[in-house]
Amino acid sequence: MSLSPERTVAELRELQELTGDENGAQRVAWTETWERARQWLREKVVPTGAEEEIDEAGNQWFTLPGNSEHALLLGGHIDSVPSGGWLDGSLNVMAAIEVLRRIAEEGTPPLTVRLVNWADEEGARFGRSLFGSSAAAGSLDDQDDLRGRRDAEGIALPDALAEHGVDLDRALEARGQLANAAAYLELHIEQGPVLESLDLPLGVVLGTFGVERHLVTWRGQAAHAGSTPMDKRRDALAGAAKLALEIRPIAAEVGDGAVCTSGGVVCRPGIVTSVVETAEQLLDQRHLDAGKLARLLELAQAASRRFAQEEDVAVEWERIWSIQPIPFDDRLIELADESIREIAGSSHRLPSGPLHDAAEVARAGIPTVMVFVQSLRGLSHTKLEDTKEEHLELAVQALDRLTTKALGGLHEQHRGSAALR
Amino acid sequence: MSLSPERTVAELRELQELTGDENGAQRVAWTETWERARQWLREKVVPTGAEEEIDEAGNQWFTLPGNSEHALLLGGHIDSVPSGGWLDGSLNVMAAIEVLRRIAEEGTPPLTVRLVNWADEEGARFGRSLFGSSAAAGSLDDQDDLRGRRDAEGIALPDALAEHGVDLDRALEARGQLANAAAYLELHIEQGPVLESLDLPLGVVLGTFGVERHLVTWRGQAAHAGSTPMDKRRDALAGAAKLALEIRPIAAEVGDGAVCTSGGVVCRPGIVTSVVETAEQLLDQRHLDAGKLARLLELAQAASRRFAQEEDVAVEWERIWSIQPIPFDDRLIELADESIREIAGSSHRLPSGPLHDAAEVARAGIPTVMVFVQSLRGLSHTKLEDTKEEHLELAVQALDRLTTKALGGLHEQHRGSAALR
Repeated sequence: MSLSPERTVAELRELQELTGDENGAQRVAWTETWERARQWLREKVVPTGAEEEIDEAGNQWFTLPGNSEHALLLGGHIDSVPSGGWLDGSLNVMAAIEVLRRIAEEGTPPLTVRLVNWADEEGARFGRSLFGSSAAAGSLDDQDDLRGRRDAEGIALPDALAEHGVDLDRALEARGQLANAAAYLELHIEQGPVLESLDLPLGVVLGTFGVERHLVTWRGQAAHAGSTPMDKRRDALAGAAKLALEIRPIAAEVGDGAVCTSGGVVCRPGIVTSVVETAEQLLDQRHLDAGKLARLLELAQAASRRFAQEEDVAVEWERIWSIQPIPFDDRLIELADESIREIAGSSHRLPSGPLHDAAEVARAGIPTVMVFVQSLRGLSHTKLEDTKEEHLELAVQALDRLTTKALGGLHEQHRGSAALR
Repeated sequence: MSLSPERTVAELRELQELTGDENGAQRVAWTETWERARQWLREKVVPTGAEEEIDEAGNQWFTLPGNSEHALLLGGHIDSVPSGGWLDGSLNVMAAIEVLRRIAEEGTPPLTVRLVNWADEEGARFGRSLFGSSAAAGSLDDQDDLRGRRDAEGIALPDALAEHGVDLDRALEARGQLANAAAYLELHIEQGPVLESLDLPLGVVLGTFGVERHLVTWRGQAAHAGSTPMDKRRDALAGAAKLALEIRPIAAEVGDGAVCTSGGVVCRPGIVTSVVETAEQLLDQRHLDAGKLARLLELAQAASRRFAQEEDVAVEWERIWSIQPIPFDDRLIELADESIREIAGSSHRLPSGPLHDAAEVARAGIPTVMVFVQSLRGLSHTKLEDTKEEHLELAVQALDRLTTKALGGLHEQHRGSAALR
């Protein structure tokens, strides 16, 4: 077996050299640098014999045919945010290439094995993340909105995509790519502090959080800071302050990894001489369980009504965005857990806060799982993003082990089906 | 005795007709409309025989000579904020004219009586309030700063003043005007809700609050709202939220009219997907007693250090501005209290939150007092500012009564002094 995790680390550095600068990775999707990274990737894959195909959404596929049309997918994204980290996205792609090499060397696999480099996971240029994977998953349903989007220089999204051979109107035809998908595996840097705090290199991801995102508006009354006695005030900020603190006992009560964040409060008039009339508060709540997510929201709304009454102010909730939790596949979670324990001694199960391409694939009904590797200091979307080299190597080994187990399991499952060649 | 409080109300309406529009009063200092108001005022005073003088700071004085050079001053300001109320400032001026008429009709008063229409109390055009009164009080010490100020259209402050005959470099020569001042009386609309809540038309002002104004900066760590467990967060907003709530028990503990206001919090990065890294919080604390003001600040700072420790964030205080409390004259407070009780049945003593020209005069060592008349709904600096007509009339009567009492008292005090003619 020729798996070389050291090579993955070396290739990641080579990619960073080719497409990054002193500020970090610069592989923003739909740019020349991104295209250069894709060309480099193409050249890396050629020796494995896998066939390349760019689908209607710009996703880059490499297919190693197996004894079955049923395909095991390994995915990642080579695009980055501007001045991003060297591992976010590209680790998955490079580790998967290493696994592909090992499989190709061993001869025809029982199932077809495909590597996908998703187009525009980050949405850095046009603010639409998971573009390629949502097109493939059939959940890209905002083309009308996308048609009107422009980047910072005023270039329209459809024009930018066309420069890279993608016709927005045909992007959904990428759905065909998942027709024979039997499973999807994705390795990713954690982008959070959990594994580091547990001193573990690797963890298996249970799914991506459901999210409830609201703008909570508190309305009191502006009043002069000097002439208004304390008991005559209707202070909108007091409501927001109480809720900013109350979301913590609420998260603790619901438990099981619940997180609630008040990311900002905008005060109006927002001047030193006036009681706050209006406070616009951002609230983000996440849970892996749909019922518990609903409970988080319900408790926060009830608390806000109580605070509004206490403070004699009005409160109003406006949903900004929400998404249901996307649980990963139980059987694949078991296989990933086993693989990690075999490679690293112990494993940990954790939810993913950020969304990933894997969530789109799972939403499309394909059995999916992710493996996380530890992030140093949880830093993400910055050139300071990093992971210990030894952990990167363990991550490549774990993805390889998981691929082997998944291929075995899927082979059993699909044996004798009409799809076998 | 010819005092006609109804005339004051009619003249206030006449002034509003002449210098206001559908959005409110437009008598911004150093504008044509303001100059028109001053010309109108001049014509109103002529029949009293009082002599007009514009001093080096642009203050408009009307002097009715008495049997002593010692002068009782009645002051107000005819300038307004843009789209301001019909009473703020001008009530004082028009009530004082009515008192001047009554005194002139009765013959030579025992002391000289002077009406002053202060220039640019509001600071609406250049952001420097109390311009004329601080020049006369000798406390205008920011000429270098003022020289560089420009209005929204780019016109420099010295140029705007020069158009109205004022040379910024000579403004402090207005100090001479207070040389013989024996006392200063000012009637003003409360601009707060206290008298209305007590159902009282009038109150006597104990002085102007001392103010401590700070920017409190909390520094935690930005972290992804999805991937950072609750117990791994260093949330700057939590510190600010705790302090925004804690200032209320602190104000209650110090008591005696203490007020504390958090007028705004600016969060960075301030996005829905991140724990707040930096929260910049405005804090304004006021008290009439210097020791208690210091205690308010001390308690808030101690609380902030406790919260910083609890939240594992840093906290830093930066003073934006402060001013010592300016107590008014005890004897004049007694006379004002008596006058109000005689006119309105009962009185109330209260501090002034906003600063007034009276504070500048008091700082210069002139015995000073103010009378407040009830504001409806505490609304100020808006065309919605209002006071019941019957309360305006009581206010004119109270100022007149107070003037008589003050003239009597000062006459006793200065009798036999060398300054008697």
